[in-house]
Amino acid sequence: MHPYGLYLPTRLVFGENAIERLPELTKGFGKKVLIVTGGGSARRNGILGRARELLRDREIFELSGVEPNPRITTIRKGVEICKKEGIEWLLPIGGGSVIDSAKAIAAGAFYEGDAWDLVLDSSKIKKALPILVVLTNAAAGSEYDDSGVISCLETHEKLPFGSPLLAPAASVMDPAYTCTVPAKHTAAGAADIFSHTLEQYLVADGSILTDAMCEGMLRTVIECTRRVLKNPNDLDARGQLMMASSFGCCGLLSIGRTPSPWPCHAIEHELSAWHDITHGEGLAVITPHWMRWSLTEKTAPRLAQYGVRVFGLDPKAPAMENAGKAIEKTSGFFRSIGMPAALSELGVTDEHFEAMADHAVLHRPLLSTAFRPLDRGGILAILRASL
Amino acid sequence: MHPYGLYLPTRLVFGENAIERLPELTKGFGKKVLIVTGGGSARRNGILGRARELLRDREIFELSGVEPNPRITTIRKGVEICKKEGIEWLLPIGGGSVIDSAKAIAAGAFYEGDAWDLVLDSSKIKKALPILVVLTNAAAGSEYDDSGVISCLETHEKLPFGSPLLAPAASVMDPAYTCTVPAKHTAAGAADIFSHTLEQYLVADGSILTDAMCEGMLRTVIECTRRVLKNPNDLDARGQLMMASSFGCCGLLSIGRTPSPWPCHAIEHELSAWHDITHGEGLAVITPHWMRWSLTEKTAPRLAQYGVRVFGLDPKAPAMENAGKAIEKTSGFFRSIGMPAALSELGVTDEHFEAMADHAVLHRPLLSTAFRPLDRGGILAILRASL
Repeated sequence: MHPYGLYLPTRLVFGENAIERLPELTKGFGKKVLIVTGGGSARRNGILGRARELLRDREIFELSGVEPNPRITTIRKGVEICKKEGIEWLLPIGGGSVIDSAKAIAAGAFYEGDAWDLVLDSSKIKKALPILVVLTNAAAGSEYDDSGVISCLETHEKLPFGSPLLAPAASVMDPAYTCTVPAKHTAAGAADIFSHTLEQYLVADGSILTDAMCEGMLRTVIECTRRVLKNPNDLDARGQLMMASSFGCCGLLSIGRTPSPWPCHAIEHELSAWHDITHGEGLAVITPHWMRWSLTEKTAPRLAQYGVRVFGLDPKAPAMENAGKAIEKTSGFFRSIGMPAALSELGVTDEHFEAMADHAVLHRPLLSTAFRPLDRGGILAILRASL
Repeated sequence: MHPYGLYLPTRLVFGENAIERLPELTKGFGKKVLIVTGGGSARRNGILGRARELLRDREIFELSGVEPNPRITTIRKGVEICKKEGIEWLLPIGGGSVIDSAKAIAAGAFYEGDAWDLVLDSSKIKKALPILVVLTNAAAGSEYDDSGVISCLETHEKLPFGSPLLAPAASVMDPAYTCTVPAKHTAAGAADIFSHTLEQYLVADGSILTDAMCEGMLRTVIECTRRVLKNPNDLDARGQLMMASSFGCCGLLSIGRTPSPWPCHAIEHELSAWHDITHGEGLAVITPHWMRWSLTEKTAPRLAQYGVRVFGLDPKAPAMENAGKAIEKTSGFFRSIGMPAALSELGVTDEHFEAMADHAVLHRPLLSTAFRPLDRGGILAILRASL
C-alpha cells in the first residue's frame, strides 16, 4: 500500500431541516457574514430566506450570480466585499461552483495581491475565513474537501487550488434541497461523481476496502440517478447521491493507492476554459474515451474488475473482453441519463485542441502517472476521439 | 436514509516510518508529555525508544502496564501523574486498550472528581488533553474515534465512554509495527473488526455505499487475516487491516442507517467485566450466536445479502437458506483463524449470566432497536447458546 494522509475536519450534518442547526454551528464565527449564491435558485426555493431568518442576529452581506464555471472576476468582487466590510465568515448556499468560490474568497480575504495568484500557487494561502456550506446539489464534493476550481476567461485557464485551511467547518445537507435541481444538472452532477470516482479507481493498484468503496459509489450513482430522474422527489435516492458527492473528492477513495492525476478532470478543465461548457457534460464525453485510450493488456484486468463488480459482467469471460464491455456500459450509462456522447454536441470544435494539450501538460505534471501514462499526444488523441 | 452527523477531526498518517513525523505533528502540544503503553512490546520493539529520541526536547513521563481490558485503577494513576506533573499532552503507543486509557486520562486530567464518574456519565467531560496515537495493533479503531471502554473490577463493569473532545489529534500508523503482534492477538483484533462491522451492517436498513463499505471491510478482514497468519510480515495485508481498523468505529459505516446498539459488544463487555477475557475472543464466540438468535423471516434477506456478497453464496438460493449458510460461514471464519467457538473454552461458566443480562439491559437502552430487538431474555438466550 502507498503511504497516505487523511484529514477530514469538516463536520457533515445530514437530514431533513438540517439548516435549522445553522445558528448553533456558526456560534463562534462572528457577526458579519457574506452569503454566496449562484443563479437564483437558492432565493426561489426559499433556502436563502430561511438562512437569513436563522441568522437575523448577524450582519448579512450578499454575493450572488456565481457562474457554473466560477470566474476569477466574481472572486475578486467577493474579496473586495470581505476587505471593505470586514466579513468574518462565509456562507455558500449552492453546489460546487458556489462552494469553490467561497473557498477562493475565504483565502483572498487575507491576501494582499490578486486572488488569481492563489489559484496559480496555493502555497501562498496562509489564512482563510471560516466557511459553513449549505449544499443544494450532489456533484463536486466541494462540501467535504479543501480545494476548488476557478476559471480565468482572459487567459483561457480553469485551474484547481487547495489548502487544508479551506476545508469548510461544517456542511449542512438536506436532500430535499436537491429535489428542484433540473434533470440536466442532476444528471451532470451524477456524471461528475461517476467520473471522479472512476479516475481514482482506475489506477495501478488498490485495496479491498477502497475498491469496494469506489464500486459502491459507482453503483450508487447508477441506481440513484435513474431513480431521481424518474421521480425527482425520491428523497432516499437524493440522500444517497448527496452522500456519494461528499465522499467523492475528500481523499477517502484514493488512500493507499497510486495517487490519481485526475486525467479526465484535467482534460475537461481545458475544454471548459475555452468553451464554458457544463463540467459534468464534458466529463461524460471524455471519460469513456479516456478509458478506451487507456485500455492495454496491463490495464485490462482492473477495467474488467470494474465491469464485473459494477455492471454484473460474467467474471469468467476474458479480461480484455470484459474491459471492452465495461467501457461500452459506461458510455451507455452516460447516454441513458441524457448526457451528450460527443464534444460537437456541446459546440466544441478542434480549433484549440493543441493549446489545450500544451496547457494541460504544463499544469498537470502528474499525468505521466496515469493508469496508462498520459502525455501531450495522448491528450490530443482523447480530445480528437471525443469530438 | 436516517439523519446523520459525521465528524472525523483526527489526522491519519499511514506509511513506513510514519513515526518520524512525531515532532512535526506535536509541535504546538507543549513540553510535558505522558507516554502510555501496555505490556512491554512497545519497549521491546524499539518503538518507545524511537519516540523518546524523536521527542528528546520534551519532558517525558511514562505510564506502562495498561491491561488488555484497561482498568480504572490504572486510569487513576495516569490522571494523578497528569495533575501532579502538569502534563500537557498524551502519547499512547499501543492498540485499543492503551488508546482508550489515554482518552480517559486526557479527560480525567481536567476533572476534579474520580475518573470513573466520566465513564458513567460522559457529559461530565468538558475538556481534555490533546492526544497523539502511535498505533501498534489493528483492532479496536480507537485511533480514529472519540470513545473508549474502561473496566472496574470491583463493580464488575466494563463500560463505554466518549466525547468529541477525545478524538486524537493525529494517529501515526506504520504497518511494520503490527508485524510482531502474536498470532492470537492478530486474530483477536481481526475478530473485533469483523464483529463491530457486522453489528453496524446487520441493522434494518442501509445504503448502497455504506453496505459496500461494510462488505469491503469484512472481505478485507477475511483475506488479510489469512495472509498475515501465514506470513506475519506481509506488510500489504498488515496495512489493509490497519485501514480496516481505523474505519471500523469512526461512524462512517453506520451513517444514514438505523443506529446500531452494538449488541455483541454490549454482551462481550459484560463477559469481560466478570472474567477478564480477551475482547476479540469473546466477540468471536458471541457474534455467530447473536446472528443465529436474530435470524427471522424479516432479517433473513440482509443476512443472505451478507452471505452472497462476502462469502460468494449463490444469489439465486432462498434468503433463509443463504442466511443460515452465512452464519455458518461466519463461525467457520472465526474458527479458521484460531478463535474459540464456545465461552467454556475461555473459562466462562453460566454463574453470572443473570447479573450480566440485568446490567446490559440497564446500561444499553438502545438494545431494543437491534436487528431483532434484544431484551433481557434475548441476552440470556445468546449467552447460554454461546456457553
